[in-house]
Amino acid sequence: MSVLVVGSTALDSIKTPQAENPRLLGGSASHAGVAASFFTPVHLVGIVGDDFPKRYINLYQRHGIHLEALQIVPGKTFHWAGEYEVNMNNRRTLKTELGVFETFSPTLPKAHRESAYVLLANIAPSLQHHVLDQMQRPKFVIADTMDLWLNIALAELLKLLRRIDAFVLNDSEARLLTKDDNLLSAVQKIHRLGPKYVIVKKGEHGSLVSSPRGLFLAPAFPLQKVVDPTGAGDSFVGGLVGYLASRGGSIDAHLKCAVVHGSAVASFCCEGFGLTRTTRITRQAIEDRVKVLRKIVRF
Amino acid sequence: MSVLVVGSTALDSIKTPQAENPRLLGGSASHAGVAASFFTPVHLVGIVGDDFPKRYINLYQRHGIHLEALQIVPGKTFHWAGEYEVNMNNRRTLKTELGVFETFSPTLPKAHRESAYVLLANIAPSLQHHVLDQMQRPKFVIADTMDLWLNIALAELLKLLRRIDAFVLNDSEARLLTKDDNLLSAVQKIHRLGPKYVIVKKGEHGSLVSSPRGLFLAPAFPLQKVVDPTGAGDSFVGGLVGYLASRGGSIDAHLKCAVVHGSAVASFCCEGFGLTRTTRITRQAIEDRVKVLRKIVRF
Repeated sequence: MSVLVVGSTALDSIKTPQAENPRLLGGSASHAGVAASFFTPVHLVGIVGDDFPKRYINLYQRHGIHLEALQIVPGKTFHWAGEYEVNMNNRRTLKTELGVFETFSPTLPKAHRESAYVLLANIAPSLQHHVLDQMQRPKFVIADTMDLWLNIALAELLKLLRRIDAFVLNDSEARLLTKDDNLLSAVQKIHRLGPKYVIVKKGEHGSLVSSPRGLFLAPAFPLQKVVDPTGAGDSFVGGLVGYLASRGGSIDAHLKCAVVHGSAVASFCCEGFGLTRTTRITRQAIEDRVKVLRKIVRF
Repeated sequence: MSVLVVGSTALDSIKTPQAENPRLLGGSASHAGVAASFFTPVHLVGIVGDDFPKRYINLYQRHGIHLEALQIVPGKTFHWAGEYEVNMNNRRTLKTELGVFETFSPTLPKAHRESAYVLLANIAPSLQHHVLDQMQRPKFVIADTMDLWLNIALAELLKLLRRIDAFVLNDSEARLLTKDDNLLSAVQKIHRLGPKYVIVKKGEHGSLVSSPRGLFLAPAFPLQKVVDPTGAGDSFVGGLVGYLASRGGSIDAHLKCAVVHGSAVASFCCEGFGLTRTTRITRQAIEDRVKVLRKIVRF
């Protein structure tokens, strides 16, 4: 089964203590779409300007990402610039130029409306609603978010939580949303807001998955060197939903393996700037890391 | 096999946003000794003043902790007072009164010198050396530490690292010791300082174990409520070495299970002030949590 991915499609200029990389392919839908593409065909819903490099279009296509719903319109592509501190944990936004993204209001092609697996990657909750409004009874809807929307669009986000199956957020966002310092009780509160599946990303500490089958602690792949963590969360959720769509059948039965596959893809993402490392891997490389993860948590 | 535990034996006055508890039984050797006692007999090496409550002597004894090497001398018992912030992650020392601990320089009874398993719980590295000097070829020596010793007794600590089999420290201490932000490469650097086994405590995120058999990511037991984390690290290493001593045989073969047992004991420690919760559990309760941990990391 294919996955419908909606989110931002952007150019990222990323500065770390080691290097500076201008206008890389970025955005939540790009990272999530490429991650999902290792497992299943992807339909990408997004918008870019007429300055969007042709080589990035080619890159999407090489990954089996279908672009019927990628609007290319006159104007500038969403451009984000950010800088990481030495430890790669803190980042500072230097610039956000929305460009054509400001007018993004996608109308889905008819075929897309019947997608069974939908990823609402990180994007304004109102846009996530707008896409969901056009869908015809998808089997599985998973949404990602970021602290910005908790701060400026909380009402819309809370409404969204009642419409989705799975919600992905990081640990500090879970605490912010629930005003609860304890992650377990924060997760229980988030379930009561709607989602059957709650997945909390904890960066290098892995993730916590809460589902009808109970809790699952998923490991993060231990890395000797983090080059650029931008898009790791998007890669995680993209790999996760791509794996689920490729398996079909019961979500409950495949969720744990899906999360670990997402974790493996995210680890590759961290090893290069933007999508440079992720776009060079193979499905087999992902499976090799999953095998390592299976080994290092076994006792 | 029994375990020799040397460390601090103290009275702890602990304040949290919820409650205040004066003069609880505390100190690294108390927590580690009780934790180890669920698995094997313990010989405790420590010092207390003549103000040390008789009920705490009884408590040690009820747990099968042998006290031939616990000195009871005129003067005041080591007293520590601290306060936790709301999220239980940050703590502030309000008072440190060393009392008789200032003169601590244990001479081990002859029988103790032949102990096979030795835990040098958190205490000044010079005292850890002093105990080790008296031992006759122990099979397994594990040492814990804290940031204080990295800051004021680094040379002694580095010398100690060349004399022990296993070293336990938390993630921020590993970074402080190696000046390396990446935990994996920090661990490699610590191996080069001496220890065959390096165990990094990551609090609620579990621990990272590096041994000749490779890496192991050990989970922390997820808790809905943390009452008081004081002594959790000591309980972790105490449970770990107690389990190893109870199994005997190959360290490599049992280390992963030992770490998970330590993790389970530490989780109980966090659920009550001081040792109040830990002293009420049973070996079976620990095994039940180990079983849960095994389940929630499996995929």
